[in-house]
Amino acid sequence: MKIKISELRELIIKALSSKYYSQEEAEKIAEVFLYAELSGKNTQGILKLLGSEPAQDIQPKSPIKIIKETKVSALIDGGGAAGALPAQFATDKAIALAKESGIGIVGLNNTFSSVGAIGFYTRKMAQNDLIGVVAASSPRAIVPTGGIEPAYGTNPIAFGFPTKESPITFDMASSAITWYGLVRAKALGQKLPENVAIDKEGNITTEPEAAMEGAILPFDRSHKGAGLAMTVELLAGALTGASFVFDEGDWGTLFIAFSPDLLVGTDQFKVNSSELVRKVKAGKTKSGESVHIAGYDTEPEIQKLLSEGEIDIEDTIINQLRAKI
Amino acid sequence: MKIKISELRELIIKALSSKYYSQEEAEKIAEVFLYAELSGKNTQGILKLLGSEPAQDIQPKSPIKIIKETKVSALIDGGGAAGALPAQFATDKAIALAKESGIGIVGLNNTFSSVGAIGFYTRKMAQNDLIGVVAASSPRAIVPTGGIEPAYGTNPIAFGFPTKESPITFDMASSAITWYGLVRAKALGQKLPENVAIDKEGNITTEPEAAMEGAILPFDRSHKGAGLAMTVELLAGALTGASFVFDEGDWGTLFIAFSPDLLVGTDQFKVNSSELVRKVKAGKTKSGESVHIAGYDTEPEIQKLLSEGEIDIEDTIINQLRAKI
Repeated sequence: MKIKISELRELIIKALSSKYYSQEEAEKIAEVFLYAELSGKNTQGILKLLGSEPAQDIQPKSPIKIIKETKVSALIDGGGAAGALPAQFATDKAIALAKESGIGIVGLNNTFSSVGAIGFYTRKMAQNDLIGVVAASSPRAIVPTGGIEPAYGTNPIAFGFPTKESPITFDMASSAITWYGLVRAKALGQKLPENVAIDKEGNITTEPEAAMEGAILPFDRSHKGAGLAMTVELLAGALTGASFVFDEGDWGTLFIAFSPDLLVGTDQFKVNSSELVRKVKAGKTKSGESVHIAGYDTEPEIQKLLSEGEIDIEDTIINQLRAKI
Repeated sequence: MKIKISELRELIIKALSSKYYSQEEAEKIAEVFLYAELSGKNTQGILKLLGSEPAQDIQPKSPIKIIKETKVSALIDGGGAAGALPAQFATDKAIALAKESGIGIVGLNNTFSSVGAIGFYTRKMAQNDLIGVVAASSPRAIVPTGGIEPAYGTNPIAFGFPTKESPITFDMASSAITWYGLVRAKALGQKLPENVAIDKEGNITTEPEAAMEGAILPFDRSHKGAGLAMTVELLAGALTGASFVFDEGDWGTLFIAFSPDLLVGTDQFKVNSSELVRKVKAGKTKSGESVHIAGYDTEPEIQKLLSEGEIDIEDTIINQLRAKI
């Protein structure tokens, strides 16, 4: 059904503030989930309020706390909260450090469930005229090269760049399919695509249940994807003091924001990045249509939805959300 | 033939110092080329002294110069020198900044030909107990998603991590095949592998010449690889003031080094990264052999060669190198 975005926002905030989160905290988390819905990454949106481990049921164990701080960095204990809340805090900290010192590198550990659509955070950095990098670790799902047991998380990495127009936000998982992709296929009784997962003996499988007992392949099915998954595991897990490889503890995230003023200058960088977009989009295509740049073309679509004030969400999802309030 | 590594090193230095580079400069460049040979990346080694545009024939236009500097950054004009020389300078600068301020981000523009095997620089950072990231842009070769004209360079990115033992150095190109892979196939009259390149009409081709007039695919043949190539183009080209997309000017490189002391602490990080290696390598495999971690297992092989003091190089390559002196 079509639902007013303002109404959807209120529903999300009400669900989130029903137990452990204040109105203000719920608003911070809702902002991330709403972005996921608006940008089409709906596995990172309202679904996080439903299912067996909804965000609003994650009881923080302690307040979010800065454990260690320098002029260019901060290490943050998320206090066991739903990921998006301490991630908003960490992003704001990285931005503040970068505004002050040119660069801010922030590690976040002790969060539960993921921080959501990480493009949200790099987009926020880019909207502040900063270049952003965010990498997030998660429970093991991907096999290393030659292995048959999962070692690395689905481990997304995102980059954000300011331009003279909308920011560029490039956001990718290291895995050939998301964990939720397995959950969804199982729930709907569907087969998986070919060549995305293996069973526990290491054979390619299209059965979601067998894949859940087995492992997911890296996105490119090669050592490069496995290497990138390992890199994220080191940056977001081992470096932040969160769990890493084969562990099933907390989730870790690394946030880096820095100003183009350190190098070519912010104005010049925005001229360059806009020029890059213009030139790439003007390149020849087989279809004759202009080249699509995923992380750039999403933004006008988000703005269109916001100006129309309405978004289309499946009835069952909205009904389940209403039932949570 | 087997050749003494010390003799090979002298040959490389003699070739490099034959025209425009001092003994000291030649030693700096030779270190990078020799690493490429020792680590099996031989398209980035002696071959750079042969062919139509050898490194020793690249005449610097001006001295290497720091254009802009802060406590956490430097922007360097390579003066038109062969890439590896200013890249060594930039790496040392990034390491010095990181030792002083916790992090150093260095942009390098105005170099000609590439900076070589970028894993060399991240390895050096890791050997200094720093985490390293290096991204390098190059002339256009890769198509954007849906496009049929090359826009992005083959754009490698590398990461280096200290451990309690050897460093981890993960180094990958954004392209499905290197440019040199096309050159080599053409020279040997060989076909290309399936699905790595397109002709100028956008059709998959296995003809190296048609691919040279066409474009190379991203390493994963999808929007993720194209997005990563774009990211490198923005970081190494647009941000450093070097050429980017569709341009055929100078080559740009970005160097980032930072200390784990900013977050979990250097000692703890090294405990964690060694633990990660140990656990991943102990994971089950289909063959029963232990898991291979490319960027970690290379180091003992390099050390073995160094302790034996000899390396195997094709006769024709050595003879061509000797003829250059």
